Amino acid sequence: MMAKFEPSKEVLSGETADVYFHRTLDILSREKLNPQAVMEVFPCRDGILCGIEEVTALLQKVLPVIESGIWALEEGAAMSRKEVVLRIAAPYQSYGLYETAICGMLSPASGWASAARECVQASAGIPVVSFGARHVHPSVAAVMDYAAVIGGCQGCSTTLGAKLAGIQPSGTMPHALMLVMGDTVAASVAFDKYMATDIARVSLVDTFKDEVEESLRVAQALGKKLSAVRLDTPRERGGVTVELVKELRAKLDLAGFSHVGIFVSGGFDAAKIRLFVEQQAPVSGFGVGSYITATPPIDFTADLHEVAGKPVAKRGRLPGITPNPRLNRVM
Amino acid sequence: MMAKFEPSKEVLSGETADVYFHRTLDILSREKLNPQAVMEVFPCRDGILCGIEEVTALLQKVLPVIESGIWALEEGAAMSRKEVVLRIAAPYQSYGLYETAICGMLSPASGWASAARECVQASAGIPVVSFGARHVHPSVAAVMDYAAVIGGCQGCSTTLGAKLAGIQPSGTMPHALMLVMGDTVAASVAFDKYMATDIARVSLVDTFKDEVEESLRVAQALGKKLSAVRLDTPRERGGVTVELVKELRAKLDLAGFSHVGIFVSGGFDAAKIRLFVEQQAPVSGFGVGSYITATPPIDFTADLHEVAGKPVAKRGRLPGITPNPRLNRVM
Amino acid sequence: MMAKFEPSKEVLSGETADVYFHRTLDILSREKLNPQAVMEVFPCRDGILCGIEEVTALLQKVLPVIESGIWALEEGAAMSRKEVVLRIAAPYQSYGLYETAICGMLSPASGWASAARECVQASAGIPVVSFGARHVHPSVAAVMDYAAVIGGCQGCSTTLGAKLAGIQPSGTMPHALMLVMGDTVAASVAFDKYMATDIARVSLVDTFKDEVEESLRVAQALGKKLSAVRLDTPRERGGVTVELVKELRAKLDLAGFSHVGIFVSGGFDAAKIRLFVEQQAPVSGFGVGSYITATPPIDFTADLHEVAGKPVAKRGRLPGITPNPRLNRVM
Amino acid sequence: MMAKFEPSKEVLSGETADVYFHRTLDILSREKLNPQAVMEVFPCRDGILCGIEEVTALLQKVLPVIESGIWALEEGAAMSRKEVVLRIAAPYQSYGLYETAICGMLSPASGWASAARECVQASAGIPVVSFGARHVHPSVAAVMDYAAVIGGCQGCSTTLGAKLAGIQPSGTMPHALMLVMGDTVAASVAFDKYMATDIARVSLVDTFKDEVEESLRVAQALGKKLSAVRLDTPRERGGVTVELVKELRAKLDLAGFSHVGIFVSGGFDAAKIRLFVEQQAPVSGFGVGSYITATPPIDFTADLHEVAGKPVAKRGRLPGITPNPRLNRVM
Amino acid sequence: MMAKFEPSKEVLSGETADVYFHRTLDILSREKLNPQAVMEVFPCRDGILCGIEEVTALLQKVLPVIESGIWALEEGAAMSRKEVVLRIAAPYQSYGLYETAICGMLSPASGWASAARECVQASAGIPVVSFGARHVHPSVAAVMDYAAVIGGCQGCSTTLGAKLAGIQPSGTMPHALMLVMGDTVAASVAFDKYMATDIARVSLVDTFKDEVEESLRVAQALGKKLSAVRLDTPRERGGVTVELVKELRAKLDLAGFSHVGIFVSGGFDAAKIRLFVEQQAPVSGFGVGSYITATPPIDFTADLHEVAGKPVAKRGRLPGITPNPRLNRVM
Amino acid sequence: MMAKFEPSKEVLSGETADVYFHRTLDILSREKLNPQAVMEVFPCRDGILCGIEEVTALLQKVLPVIESGIWALEEGAAMSRKEVVLRIAAPYQSYGLYETAICGMLSPASGWASAARECVQASAGIPVVSFGARHVHPSVAAVMDYAAVIGGCQGCSTTLGAKLAGIQPSGTMPHALMLVMGDTVAASVAFDKYMATDIARVSLVDTFKDEVEESLRVAQALGKKLSAVRLDTPRERGGVTVELVKELRAKLDLAGFSHVGIFVSGGFDAAKIRLFVEQQAPVSGFGVGSYITATPPIDFTADLHEVAGKPVAKRGRLPGITPNPRLNRVM
Repeated sequence: MMAKFEPSKEVLSGETADVYFHRTLDILSREKLNPQAVMEVFPCRDGILCGIEEVTALLQKVLPVIESGIWALEEGAAMSRKEVVLRIAAPYQSYGLYETAICGMLSPASGWASAARECVQASAGIPVVSFGARHVHPSVAAVMDYAAVIGGCQGCSTTLGAKLAGIQPSGTMPHALMLVMGDTVAASVAFDKYMATDIARVSLVDTFKDEVEESLRVAQALGKKLSAVRLDTPRERGGVTVELVKELRAKLDLAGFSHVGIFVSGGFDAAKIRLFVEQQAPVSGFGVGSYITATPPIDFTADLHEVAGKPVAKRGRLPGITPNPRLNRVM
Repeated sequence: MMAKFEPSKEVLSGETADVYFHRTLDILSREKLNPQAVMEVFPCRDGILCGIEEVTALLQKVLPVIESGIWALEEGAAMSRKEVVLRIAAPYQSYGLYETAICGMLSPASGWASAARECVQASAGIPVVSFGARHVHPSVAAVMDYAAVIGGCQGCSTTLGAKLAGIQPSGTMPHALMLVMGDTVAASVAFDKYMATDIARVSLVDTFKDEVEESLRVAQALGKKLSAVRLDTPRERGGVTVELVKELRAKLDLAGFSHVGIFVSGGFDAAKIRLFVEQQAPVSGFGVGSYITATPPIDFTADLHEVAGKPVAKRGRLPGITPNPRLNRVM
Repeated sequence: MMAKFEPSKEVLSGETADVYFHRTLDILSREKLNPQAVMEVFPCRDGILCGIEEVTALLQKVLPVIESGIWALEEGAAMSRKEVVLRIAAPYQSYGLYETAICGMLSPASGWASAARECVQASAGIPVVSFGARHVHPSVAAVMDYAAVIGGCQGCSTTLGAKLAGIQPSGTMPHALMLVMGDTVAASVAFDKYMATDIARVSLVDTFKDEVEESLRVAQALGKKLSAVRLDTPRERGGVTVELVKELRAKLDLAGFSHVGIFVSGGFDAAKIRLFVEQQAPVSGFGVGSYITATPPIDFTADLHEVAGKPVAKRGRLPGITPNPRLNRVM
Repeated sequence: MMAKFEPSKEVLSGETADVYFHRTLDILSREKLNPQAVMEVFPCRDGILCGIEEVTALLQKVLPVIESGIWALEEGAAMSRKEVVLRIAAPYQSYGLYETAICGMLSPASGWASAARECVQASAGIPVVSFGARHVHPSVAAVMDYAAVIGGCQGCSTTLGAKLAGIQPSGTMPHALMLVMGDTVAASVAFDKYMATDIARVSLVDTFKDEVEESLRVAQALGKKLSAVRLDTPRERGGVTVELVKELRAKLDLAGFSHVGIFVSGGFDAAKIRLFVEQQAPVSGFGVGSYITATPPIDFTADLHEVAGKPVAKRGRLPGITPNPRLNRVM
Repeated sequence: MMAKFEPSKEVLSGETADVYFHRTLDILSREKLNPQAVMEVFPCRDGILCGIEEVTALLQKVLPVIESGIWALEEGAAMSRKEVVLRIAAPYQSYGLYETAICGMLSPASGWASAARECVQASAGIPVVSFGARHVHPSVAAVMDYAAVIGGCQGCSTTLGAKLAGIQPSGTMPHALMLVMGDTVAASVAFDKYMATDIARVSLVDTFKDEVEESLRVAQALGKKLSAVRLDTPRERGGVTVELVKELRAKLDLAGFSHVGIFVSGGFDAAKIRLFVEQQAPVSGFGVGSYITATPPIDFTADLHEVAGKPVAKRGRLPGITPNPRLNRVM
Repeated sequence: MMAKFEPSKEVLSGETADVYFHRTLDILSREKLNPQAVMEVFPCRDGILCGIEEVTALLQKVLPVIESGIWALEEGAAMSRKEVVLRIAAPYQSYGLYETAICGMLSPASGWASAARECVQASAGIPVVSFGARHVHPSVAAVMDYAAVIGGCQGCSTTLGAKLAGIQPSGTMPHALMLVMGDTVAASVAFDKYMATDIARVSLVDTFKDEVEESLRVAQALGKKLSAVRLDTPRERGGVTVELVKELRAKLDLAGFSHVGIFVSGGFDAAKIRLFVEQQAPVSGFGVGSYITATPPIDFTADLHEVAGKPVAKRGRLPGITPNPRLNRVM
C-alpha cells in the first residue's frame, strides 16, 4: 500500500505551502536553529481518519532516517475531537515546511470518509457507491473517491479513484447517452451489445417516460441480462421516493422480472438512506454524491509540544507530549 | 490569461471522469453516432462563478476548431440559481468525456469564490486575506487561493495560488517560529534581520504573553519598522474579540505606536467580520480560512438541450436552447 | 333567491336541536312566560358570512308576522370576530327552539366560504373549482359547494350544490374511467364521442404514463377539441409541482398545442395556490377539495341581550342591544 | 342495527355525487362496458372508523345480489393510515356513481368519532357528553352525535342523534332560560317542578352571580333533588379552571352538599380534560363541543385495484387486491 | 434634597463592605500609599439611574473637602450600558472602603426605577402605584418605593417610602379587612365612617361575590362618596381581564355610577398594562408589585482609571479618564 | 440563634408596612373587632425557606403570650409551591400590621437561599462563596450573605453577613489593590507581609499580565505560603474558561506549584458551575455574585383562613386551616 501515494513536486517544493513557512525555514536556517521538535496533529471534531497514508508517504520521503519518528492512527480509524492522530519527532527544519500539506491531506479526506461512513452505517448492508466526482476539482476526484471507499463505500465512479482504492470503477448510464440515442431501450440494447460481459447491465429509466413503463420496456428487451434499473428522477418530478421504489418493485414482480434490481440516486444523504431502509424500500444500491462532497473538511491543527527536549506550548495549549496509547509507530 | 490553466494529462485522458462516460463514448463510437449537440451548464444556487477559465482552457484544447462554439459568463461574475453560465455546441464525442471535469472545475471554485465575496462585502474595504490552504488538499490549494482572490480577497498565503492569481503571496509568522525561537521579540528581530525589505513586518503576539504586553514589547524592539501585529488568540483564551482589538489599539496609541496596525485571524467568517466592522473595531486586515474552505461546492448540472438540431430534454427539464443574453461567445 | 332554502321537517320539529331547548320551551310555556326577547348572534373569528339566507328562510317560517324583526348582514359579507351578524326581536317562545339550528346553519357554511375566499384571493383571477364533496357527508355536500361558490369559487362538482348556487356543475374525468377503459386516449375519445358539446373536454393525464407523454397523445387524438388536461399526480409520484406545469406547457407548445389549458388538482390550498401564482405556473384552473372541507366551522354564539324591554346579559357579556350600522332589516 | 340508516333519495339519484361520475356511467353504459371491478377504500390517517354502517346500508340497496361482495372493518374499529377498511367487488356500473357518497359518509364521521375517542381516553372514566350540535349543519347534527357516541361519548344533546345511537338525549339548562326567568334559583325550581323525574336536575350556575354563591343558593332550594351544577364560565371571566372546581367542591362540602356533582363545559378538549384529570379536579362530567366538530374529516380514498379479473392501479398505487385479514365479509 | 439620605453606621464602618477592602486599606496604610485616584462607575445595561443621591450623601460625608471631586448624572436620568454615571477623584484611602456600598446603593435602586419607568411608559398617563413592599425586605422597602417614584410611579404604599419620595402614601383596603368584618359593604361603610375625608374611598370588590354584583352593592351603599372600586381577582378565578373591566364599567354606568373609577391590581407588568391600554380598558389606576421587585439589580462596576496622575486599567479595560459630557460636578 | 435577629423600630412602628394595614387596624379598633384569626403564609414557587427566624423573632416580640400560636418550617428547609410554611393564630389586631414585613422578610431571603442552593448542588462539594454584596443595597447585604450561607455557601464576603451566619468573612484581593500598587507580585508580597497568618494568601492574577505568567511569578515570590490564585478574567478577554483553568493547572504543576489552588469568579451561575464540574476543571472554589442577587424574590402570600373559629377564605382560596404535618410549633 505504501507505494500508492507519491508526493507531487509542488508539495515537495513547498509551492502549495503557506508562504510564512518558507520564511520561517529561511530564518531558522540563517540562525542555525534546527532543534529536535515534536509536532502533534489533532482534528477539530469526531470522524474517520483519512489521508494519513498520504501524509506518511510524504514524511518518509523528507525526514532524516535517523533521529526521526512518526506515530499515527491507521487509515480509516475512528478518531475523537482533539485526539492526537499523528506525532512527528524530528529536526524541525526537515518537516516545518510541510505543516500546510500535512493538514491539507488529512482535512478534506477525513471529511469525505466520515460522510461516507454515515451513509454506509445508514444503509444497513445495502451497497453505497460514490458518485460525487463532478462536485470536486478533477485534481482531487481520485482522492475523494478513495476516501469514500475508506469510509465504507463499495464502489466509486472514477477510474483513478478506483485504482487508488484497489477496486473496479462503477457506473451505469448517463442521461446524455439516452438523449443522444433518443430512446432508452435502444441505448440499453447498444450498451448490452458492446460492453464486456463482466460489466453489469444497469439501465437508467427516468429520461423519457414514466419510470415503471420504461423499466418494463427495458426488461422485456434485455430479459435475464438486465441486472438492475437506476432511478434518478429529478426533484422537479418528485425525486426518488420510497413509494416509487415499492411501486416499481411490485410492477416488475407482477410482470415476472423479479431478478431486476433497483438502484437509486439523486439527493441521497444519510438521513434519506435511513428513511428508505426504515420504510423497507426494496433498493439494491444507493448512489451518493453531493452529501459526501459537500461535507466540510475536518480541520486539523498541528502544534509543537516539545522543542529540544523541553515541553512547550503556545497559550491555550498544554505543554509536553500528549499520551495516546492508540498511536502506532510507523517510522 | 488564457495560458494560465493547462489541463492535466489525467483530465485529458478521462481518468478522473465518471467511468460511464468512457462507456458512453465507446458505444456511440461503435454506433457511429456523433451528432452536433448543445450542452448547457447551470449552478444549483446563487453565487460567484469561478473556474470558467479553466473549463474554457480545457474545451479549447479538445473541441474541433470548426463546428464548435462556447458561450460563457465571465470569471468572477455573479450568477443566479439555474442560470445557464456555459453553453457548448460541438459534436458530442468531442467533449462528452469531460462533463465530470467541467462540473468539477466549476463547483468548488465557485463555492470558494462566493464565500470569499461574502467576507469581502462584510469587511467594508478592509483587506481580507485567504489563509485556508491547510484545510484543502495540496492539489487544489492553489485553485482555492485563486478562487478566493477572484471572490475579492486582497491576498492569499500560497506561492502557487498567488502566482495563478497574479499577485504576491501574503504571510506573517507561524506559532512554530515563536516556539522554536522561544521568544516573540527574538523571533521578530530575526525576521526583520533576514527578510527582504519589501516584506511587511507583522508580528504574531499571542504565543507566550498577554497580547497587549507582547505587542508593546515588539513595538519597542522594532519601532517604526513594525507594520502590524497579528492577533490569533485561540478560542480557549477567548478568541479575538472586538474589545481586545480596541484595548490593544488604545494601549498602542497611549505608548506612541499609532503606526502599528492590527491584523486579526482565527475563526473569522462573514458574520464575525460584519460584527467587527459594525462595532468599529480598528482592524487593518482579516485572515479568513475555514469559512471559505468549509463552504460546500456550488453543484453544477450539465444538460443536453439540442441534439442534431432538434430540441431535447430529459423529464423535468425544458427542451431547446435556454436564452441568456449575458453569455459571451469565447470560441 | 328566498325560495332556495326550505327548512327540513327535522329542523322545524326541533329533533336536531339540543334537547334542553325543548325543556326550556316546555317550562316557559307552563309558566306562561313568553316575553319579547332580543337575541344577537356573532362569530368567534373573522371570516365570510354564509348560511344567513338559510337562517332567514327558517325564521321567516316560524316568527309571528307582527311583533318580529330580523336584522342581518348579507350572504357573503366579510365579518369581524365578535361582530353581531344577526339580531332577532320576537316573542322568545317563537324562536327559542331554533338556537341550535341557527348557529349550525352559519358555522360550517361560513368556515367553508372563508376557506374558499382565501383560495380565490390567492389565485389572482385564475378560476378555482370546489372539488371537496367526497370529504363531507352527502347531506351537506350541496351546502358545502354552495358556500364555496359564495366564497368565490367559479364552479363546484355536485349537481345539487351547483343548482343551489345557480350555476352548472364542473367535472373532468375520474381515474376510475381510465382504469375501467384501460387507456387514457381511448377514454378521452369516448368522452368526446358521447358528451354534449357544451361540456369542456378536459382529460386526466396522470393515470398510466408520464404526464407529458400522455398529454401529447391525447392532444394528438382530440386536436382542437381538447380544452385542457388535468394534472392530479399523486404525492407518491411527487405531486403537482410548478416545474411539472412549466415543463408540460413548454412541451405542449413545442408540439403545437398552445390552445390546451392545464388544470391542476391534488392537495391545493391557499399557500400552494399562492406559490403557483408567484412562480408564474401557467395554470388555467385550480381544483380545491380538502382545504375547504378541513377548515373548522366558524363557531357562532347566540346571546339574549334584552328581555321584555330590559337590557340583560349573562356574566362576561354586555347588557343591551349592540349597535351595528352594517345590519339590514330583512323582516 | 341494519335498518338504522336509510339512503336519501338525493344520494340514490347521485345529485350529491361529483358530476363526472354521472358522465363516466353514461360513457361506460354507451360503450357497454360493465366489468366486474374491485374498489378499495382507505383513510389518510389513523383514527376510529365511523360511517361504515351507513355505507353498507347504501351498498346493500344498490349492489346486485349475485356477483357482489363487501368486506369491511366494524363500526368503531381503530384503523391505521392507508389500511383498507372497505373492499367492494361488483360490476362497476352498479356502484361507480356512489364513490363520492361512500367517502363522504366515512370522512367526517370518522373524524368526529376519533376526536371523541381522544376525549374519552383522556377522561379516565368520567363521562363525556357531546354538546357540539350547534357547530354543525342541522342536516348532519344527528350523524355527528352518533359518531361521538361511537367514539365513546356517554351522551349527546340532540334527540335525533340520541335515537340513532340508541340512547336518551342529555341536557341541563341553557343561559337563555336563566335570562328569560331572571333568576337562577327560580329557573331551577321551575325546572324541578315541571320536568319528569327521570331527568336529572343539573343547574347552570354562572349566569348572574359568583358560581360558588349561586351553587349554594340552588342547593339550598332543591336540596337532595339537585343532581349537579354545571359550570360554563365564559373565557372573559377566566373560564372553568381546576382551581374553581376544587373551590366549589370544598365550599359545597363545607355546606353539607356533598351529593351535588359538578359538570363542566366550555372549551374542553382532550388536553384540557387530561389536565383536569391529572390535577384531580373533582368533576362528574365533561361537555365537549367544538373540539369534536372542529376536527377535520379523515379523508378517505377509493381506488380500483382489479378490473375484469386483472390487477390494475393508477400510477403511485400498487395493482391487485391488498390483503387485510381484519376485513369481514358483510355481503 | 441632600439631607434626605443619611449613611448608616454599618455603612460608614464598612461592616457591610466586602472584607478584602478592609484588608486593602490596611495594607495601603501600612505601605503609606494613598495616591490620588480616579474611580469610574458604569452600569451593565441601559436603564434609569437611581441611588446616586444616596451615594453622593455618603461620599460627601467621607471625602476630604480639598483634593476631591465627584461628577455624576442626575437621579432619574436615563443611562446607557457602560456609560460612566459617576466619577470620583480623591485620595484612594478616603473612599476605597466604600466601593461595595456605592455599587450596592445604585444597583437595585436603578433596577427598580427602570422597571417602574417601563410600566409608566406603558400606562399612557394612567397613574401607576407601587404595591411591592411585601416582596422586599423591610430594610429596603422605603428605598424600593422611593425608586419606583423616581421611575415615575404616582404613588407608593409605604409610609417611609412616601416620605423619602416627598409624597403621601396610597392604599385601598386589604382582603384581611373584608374577611375580619365578613362583608364588603359593611367594611366599606366602616372605612367611610372613620377615615379622614382626604383619603379616597376605594373598595376592594372581589372577596366574596361576583365583582360586578359587589361593586353595585358598594356603590349603592356609598353613593357619590365612592371614589373607585379595586379589582384584584386571583388567577384561580381568571385574574383581572380587559373584558371584566369593560363589563364592570358598562354595568356601573347602566346603574348610574359613572363617577366610580376602576382600579386594578394583581400580576400587572409593562406588557399587561400595554395590553389594557391598547384594548382601551377603562382603568383609573394600575397597582404594580412584583414586576418592579422581581427586576434584577442593574449591576454596576467601579474601575480605577487613573492613579497618581497616570492612566491605568486592568486587562480588558481602557486606561485613563473616560469622557462623558453629561456628567455634572456635584462636589 | 433566636437572639440573632432584632426587629428594627421602623418595622415595629409599621412605617415600612403598606399603609392600608394602618387604616385597617384603625377601623377594627374603633369597631372593637379583634377576633382570634388564623393566617397562613405560602410561597409562589418551590425553593429553600429563609427568613423564618427573622419573622419568628418579630412575632415573638408582638404577639400576646397567651392566646397565640406560631407554626413554621425550619430555616433552610425545602418547600413546595403553595405549601403553608407559617401559620399564626392570635387576635388579629396583634399582628395585622406586620403582614407586609412577614412576607418581605421571607421573599428575597428565600430567593437568595434557593439560588445559592442551586450553585452548591452544581458544585459537587467544591466550596461556593457568596460575592454578591455589591449588587444589593447595603441595608440588606448582611441578610443576603446570611441567606446564601443558609442555602449552602461555605463563605461570604461581608463582615456583618458572616457574623449573622456565624462564620468568618472570606476575601482575596480586589483589582483596586493591584492598580494602586502597580504590580501583582508587589501587592501579593505586601499582603503576605501584613495580614494575619490565618488569612489565606489568594492572589488575583488577571490584572496586568497573562494569567499563567502572573501565577508563576506570584508562586515564585510566595512559594509554599501561596494558598491559591484567583482567576476573574473579564468577558472582554474571554472570561474564565475550563480550558484556561486546565492550562493554568498544567503549567503550575510543571513548574512545581501543585500546592497552589485555583479559585474562580466572574459570571458563575449554576449552569456554568455544572459545566466546570462535568468537564473536570481543577477548581478549588467558586465565587458567585450576581446569580444569587439577580434571582427574583420568591413571593409569599398571607391569607386569613379562620376568623373567630369559623373557616373563611376569599374567592379563589379554600376556607379553613390547611393541614401540613411538616409544620413545627415554635411559640
